Amino acid sequence: MNDDLTAIAADIASGEVTPTDLMDALLTRIAALDPQVLAYECLNPAARAEAGQCTEELKRGMRRGPLHGVPIAIKDNYLTAGMPTTAGSRAPGYTFANEDAAAVARLRAAGAIVIGKTRTHEFAWGTETPPTRNPWDLSRIPGGSSGGSGAALAARMAYGALGSDTGGSIRIPASLCGVVGLKPTFGRVSRAGIVPHSWSLDHAGPLTLSVRDAALLLNVLAGHDTRDPGSADVPVPDYIASLDGGIASMRIGVCRNHFFGANEAQVEAQVERAIATLAALGAQVIDFEVPNLKYGLGAIFAIELASSSAYHDRGLQRGATAAMADDVRTLVEIGRMVSASDYLKAEQLRACLIADFNAVFERVDVVVTPASPVTAWQRGQATVVTGGMEESPLAASWRLTYPFNLTGLPALSVPCGFDSGGLPIGLQIAGKPFDETTILRVAASYESVNHWNAMRSPIARSVQP
Amino acid sequence: MNDDLTAIAADIASGEVTPTDLMDALLTRIAALDPQVLAYECLNPAARAEAGQCTEELKRGMRRGPLHGVPIAIKDNYLTAGMPTTAGSRAPGYTFANEDAAAVARLRAAGAIVIGKTRTHEFAWGTETPPTRNPWDLSRIPGGSSGGSGAALAARMAYGALGSDTGGSIRIPASLCGVVGLKPTFGRVSRAGIVPHSWSLDHAGPLTLSVRDAALLLNVLAGHDTRDPGSADVPVPDYIASLDGGIASMRIGVCRNHFFGANEAQVEAQVERAIATLAALGAQVIDFEVPNLKYGLGAIFAIELASSSAYHDRGLQRGATAAMADDVRTLVEIGRMVSASDYLKAEQLRACLIADFNAVFERVDVVVTPASPVTAWQRGQATVVTGGMEESPLAASWRLTYPFNLTGLPALSVPCGFDSGGLPIGLQIAGKPFDETTILRVAASYESVNHWNAMRSPIARSVQP
Repeated sequence: MNDDLTAIAADIASGEVTPTDLMDALLTRIAALDPQVLAYECLNPAARAEAGQCTEELKRGMRRGPLHGVPIAIKDNYLTAGMPTTAGSRAPGYTFANEDAAAVARLRAAGAIVIGKTRTHEFAWGTETPPTRNPWDLSRIPGGSSGGSGAALAARMAYGALGSDTGGSIRIPASLCGVVGLKPTFGRVSRAGIVPHSWSLDHAGPLTLSVRDAALLLNVLAGHDTRDPGSADVPVPDYIASLDGGIASMRIGVCRNHFFGANEAQVEAQVERAIATLAALGAQVIDFEVPNLKYGLGAIFAIELASSSAYHDRGLQRGATAAMADDVRTLVEIGRMVSASDYLKAEQLRACLIADFNAVFERVDVVVTPASPVTAWQRGQATVVTGGMEESPLAASWRLTYPFNLTGLPALSVPCGFDSGGLPIGLQIAGKPFDETTILRVAASYESVNHWNAMRSPIARSVQP
Repeated sequence: MNDDLTAIAADIASGEVTPTDLMDALLTRIAALDPQVLAYECLNPAARAEAGQCTEELKRGMRRGPLHGVPIAIKDNYLTAGMPTTAGSRAPGYTFANEDAAAVARLRAAGAIVIGKTRTHEFAWGTETPPTRNPWDLSRIPGGSSGGSGAALAARMAYGALGSDTGGSIRIPASLCGVVGLKPTFGRVSRAGIVPHSWSLDHAGPLTLSVRDAALLLNVLAGHDTRDPGSADVPVPDYIASLDGGIASMRIGVCRNHFFGANEAQVEAQVERAIATLAALGAQVIDFEVPNLKYGLGAIFAIELASSSAYHDRGLQRGATAAMADDVRTLVEIGRMVSASDYLKAEQLRACLIADFNAVFERVDVVVTPASPVTAWQRGQATVVTGGMEESPLAASWRLTYPFNLTGLPALSVPCGFDSGGLPIGLQIAGKPFDETTILRVAASYESVNHWNAMRSPIARSVQP
């Protein structure tokens, strides 16, 4: 793409544009659009000064790293030096350090400038991210919990963004906002300095305008960090190097239970077309089933509810949940009722699913699914209908993403078309542990033969440039 | 020792004694003594035939392995082919497969003959093992939950035995019965085929008459097993090879909080003498403290209660706990009340303790402590007094052992003397992950300069040979 992060970073490096001019233009866009989109919780008061500094450095021939001068948006559950962190909550008694989370520090060390903090569903416990609007239809939610990051990108109010993903919180807003969202393998990107939601399920990762951008940001973000107990000491490849290798003879797995049959018809049809495209590109399509997935919802609910309530233990004791939004308050309060016995059974089911997918990945290289059973729903909509069944938007929206939080496997969502209402549809591609290289390669190959991610949301088109 | 497992195995190999004669003599001893000690739940009906088979094989020059023809006792929570498994319970609805646990299979492959199944505290959830008596004083308990194995050895009704250890269940009866008990590193010995008590705390290991015997049995038992999800794929050294290396310049750590100050006075005095002995043997003694141990009891209780109740979930649903002993029924039933939130906090404390001990083991090679704050208490005794404080025998008895279940570190108990009532006292030696070699070497060095384990319990002396 000619206006993605990769292109802009190259333009800055070549002197085509200065960080100062780029930041000024972006802040002008944000001033014009964000009153409608509400993607940002706050802006970095030093953003202009930092852009000026980057511009000065370039004049002296200095370049901090591959992201020199590139504006990036940070989800508001990452600690940031110089800006407040709220985790989307006004509940009393939570205080967050005025310092950079590990991932933010890595971006800054690579030269990125933090534009501001993007809205999150309160404490990342939901998939709607009020009050943020979906740039493709302002009456609809952007998905969540990283809804602010997804919306900021879809409105072209950032060149890249950080999200966090506990049950789908990067991939769901990416899917619903028509951008790329990558949840790396558990342990791949440090979570040090992210407000915890559920330690064993939380993942950090980027949302971007293209697959190449996701690879570029992962190059910067990936690596071992002893401050995150879940961090893995596994070598980091160059994720860009093999992006263009194509997918001839690649084995594409399609899990025919759980992921199909209870999706909106247009979503399912579009994903089938994407699978046909992958086959046309030379891949071999292999269908399979994972029967244990039928127990997955209970497992992720038990683990996520329990872990979240453990984190909020002191808040619960002092009554802070009374100040939370009703949906979040309910989830945090009922989490206390999960028994340790049920928690352990959930962890056992998780171990079974990990074994099941290990076996699957002996036969296939990646697994493709829809990223969300539904496209963006209306704000305030109480239920959605999938496969003839009425269910809560939360229950529907994370069904296809949470299996890869339980298993810790890497997964991304890449745009794969639109429904008849013009709302984006996402294709999810999941892979083997620490094999982000292959899922990025499949996604790049798919991306190269369509132009879904070059389409701009109506509001993004409403302001020039 | 001239009558330990190592000596007997050598006598068999040299033809000094036949497996048949050895088994006959042992069964005669058991027939004479076990009606008083009650160490065995059942005997192997094929023991004589198997001994005959071993004798025949020797005549033909065949030797199955290092334990050829040696009688070994198996705790009754290990599955065994050809003998029932009860886990010490008569609760209805529990059925256990008629096959060998992994550890039993390894012993048999090395030539050992299973004598029978030793009594366990019901479902390994306690430290008394009724109705088994302590061979040093038949009015007292043998410790538990591997009390039958400890008592069988102390009465010389076995040459070696298997135990399991979730909070101290190998080391407590070893200490109270005056024998050696080794809980290896978590993952070192397969638990496949052991009735689960608490997956993340359960360990399998041997009880023996000497440190050398423990090394010999660990040589046979250690190794990776994919059927145990906790099993570690770590190379197995020869544990006997370096037993006699001495402890000159070895750094002996003594944790002065938690492990000292709340023990029976004679226990503490005898352990201080043992530490002085180690110093006299050339070791350097280094005192330290681990403040987080003050939160340890809550953590092990939360994890053990919750895990046990998760295992017994179906038994609880069908009311099977009504048929359990009162103490076990209470523990299994209250385990349902542990919240997942508290369970997660317990796991976090555990992670802190693991980090604390990792730091300690940068400064020391082993840690020595008393194995139990108290010597064997009377059957039916409701409380014990330690450090001027009255407490339940369970609370006291596992205080010094459970830290090494929470951390998974290897630890053994070796006899270190007797109180004025003639009851054995145990010295606990703990080490770095997978460094059983060093704790065995320290224990062997200590053992070589005293004769505690050559002393025989009164009942063991009452029958010849």
